[in-house]
Amino acid sequence: MRVDGTMMRTIWPSGHGAVRIIDQTRLPHELVTVELKTLDDAAHAIKAMLVRGAPLIGAAAAYGVALALKANASDESLDHACRVLAATRPTAINLRWALDRARREIGRHMPVDRVPVAWRLAAAICDEDVAANRAIGRHGLALIRDRAREGEPVNILTHCNAGWLAAVDIGTATAPIYAAHDAGIPVHVWVDETRPRNQGASLTAWELGQHGVPHTVIVDNVGGHLMQHGLVDLVIVGSDRTTAQGDVANKIGTYLKALAAQDNDVPFYVALPSPTIDWHLADGVAEIPIEQRDPAEVTHIAGRLADGRVAAVRVTPEGSPAANYAFDVTPARLVTGLITERGICPASREGLHGLFPERREPHAGA
Amino acid sequence: MRVDGTMMRTIWPSGHGAVRIIDQTRLPHELVTVELKTLDDAAHAIKAMLVRGAPLIGAAAAYGVALALKANASDESLDHACRVLAATRPTAINLRWALDRARREIGRHMPVDRVPVAWRLAAAICDEDVAANRAIGRHGLALIRDRAREGEPVNILTHCNAGWLAAVDIGTATAPIYAAHDAGIPVHVWVDETRPRNQGASLTAWELGQHGVPHTVIVDNVGGHLMQHGLVDLVIVGSDRTTAQGDVANKIGTYLKALAAQDNDVPFYVALPSPTIDWHLADGVAEIPIEQRDPAEVTHIAGRLADGRVAAVRVTPEGSPAANYAFDVTPARLVTGLITERGICPASREGLHGLFPERREPHAGA
Repeated sequence: MRVDGTMMRTIWPSGHGAVRIIDQTRLPHELVTVELKTLDDAAHAIKAMLVRGAPLIGAAAAYGVALALKANASDESLDHACRVLAATRPTAINLRWALDRARREIGRHMPVDRVPVAWRLAAAICDEDVAANRAIGRHGLALIRDRAREGEPVNILTHCNAGWLAAVDIGTATAPIYAAHDAGIPVHVWVDETRPRNQGASLTAWELGQHGVPHTVIVDNVGGHLMQHGLVDLVIVGSDRTTAQGDVANKIGTYLKALAAQDNDVPFYVALPSPTIDWHLADGVAEIPIEQRDPAEVTHIAGRLADGRVAAVRVTPEGSPAANYAFDVTPARLVTGLITERGICPASREGLHGLFPERREPHAGA
Repeated sequence: MRVDGTMMRTIWPSGHGAVRIIDQTRLPHELVTVELKTLDDAAHAIKAMLVRGAPLIGAAAAYGVALALKANASDESLDHACRVLAATRPTAINLRWALDRARREIGRHMPVDRVPVAWRLAAAICDEDVAANRAIGRHGLALIRDRAREGEPVNILTHCNAGWLAAVDIGTATAPIYAAHDAGIPVHVWVDETRPRNQGASLTAWELGQHGVPHTVIVDNVGGHLMQHGLVDLVIVGSDRTTAQGDVANKIGTYLKALAAQDNDVPFYVALPSPTIDWHLADGVAEIPIEQRDPAEVTHIAGRLADGRVAAVRVTPEGSPAANYAFDVTPARLVTGLITERGICPASREGLHGLFPERREPHAGA
């Protein structure tokens, strides 16, 4: 997408056996890119959330394998890289998906041939993500077009950042929004701040602003009130893991917006490329592991001081503990539909099998 | 309540025709008290939220009238004071209740007699608030005691600050919590941060900590996840205005927690002294005015820097607009019960009339 007039992706090979990323912990205050040269660099970038967002985590992991193999292309090194990268974040399934694919597609080659294979695979995963998101944009565009009225923007609420910064480009939840904006349909986005890491206020607002999409930042508490008063036409969020029955793990707080959408008859859609689907799980609330992160992300908030410096301030009393659950699960019953690269389907086993018939169990049936 | 070992209220006459308050905008980082000497001081303290919380706003308004009459006890001055104070905040009904009462009870005296009457009235409003909150604590204690299990604390979630800092003392939502804690029933409070002004993280966490009540600060997004996993036994919140049919205006985001409570069969109670009831309104969503405040409260967050200074940081990109709705309305259908000074009742017209029979319309009936 466009940044200060230049087209960028979130991750790209920098040409001499290294990879470059946007350090998303520095946004929206500074646009800083960082070079990853080793497996440890890649693992750190994922764990410390320099890169985040399920699709981008998958892409970064694939590049992490390539960086590891550059140093040592043995079976042990491939195994080690996959283990180290898999341990960085527990919830996004794209990480495991990318690593399983790397192990399979790279592991069948002789060590001497593996490095170029690994780089090609990472590049392919990136290009596939961009193509999937473009398709999600095409399918989701119809949902926005259906709600367009003369002279008024379509009001879309989103939570966290499932934008191009969460993917390689275009984004998942933002793909229909960018498609509509680029097609001349007036849209306005309510951007949930998304505490504790403020990915909405810091990343989604920034990328929408760069692309010229009208938007308003709100705190996470506001969405229900807006829906009660008819100020939201559509909710679109992303997903970190969607189960085979359509339960959706996404950034903490998504479930509350889904409840409000249901209570006010506002359509609630989840946009996701198929690598985000965990075909092995059914009951998301019971089965998806929910990451707990450092309580300091709750007790301290970073931002820009009046003098321009970026600093963290403590917002809680000394001695008050905090808990930091990073994701929650929205049961399929609250999801109007899933927007995938193959089209839109109900959030159910049947719905997903309709789009992904190859995932039907061979002898399924009553 | 206890602060650094000393008993304090949130507002008290300072002995020479002035009033002293805790400046709540400085908590939790600094305990600073401020003297109010004039009507304008009082109006500013309410508007800028040095004092906040529906019961405390009512008490501060009553003292504001006394300060105004000290300078000029004429009818015009009484009218002017009531108009100025009524305009400070639109949602909390206690403000209007206190001013109506002041106008009525002070206005019937001759100007020369009004100053002592006004001071006595303000003191009476304060003492009545404390007594009401104590009664709320007694009634609500039973709800907590019913849920106590051997060896495990009762987990209570609260939103915003409906603590003693929101009242003159004891608090509304916190009254049952303090009563249970003081009675030796183990409780643990999930404290919603409550963006954008962080009254949970800055005020509720602080006052619970001062009193020794175990608690954990969470961001506003977390409550639904906790309820899905059985980690919340009870929700208790306060109210800024409750309609005659039991709809509850409270700090923005309360509605989302009520939806999650309903979805997970968690009891959702609202604690309020009767001056918070607006007997003239029925449909809260349609009829209660919702204050919109400065977007800077969303775009900037104040806290303590590592060097100890208190400063505000900007968390949103330059150029991204923000909206700041301060309250929302939870429909009565989502409220398990209202805890008032007269007891606990269903959130309905019938329920409220059961406790407040004098409020029945004379010829009501089908």
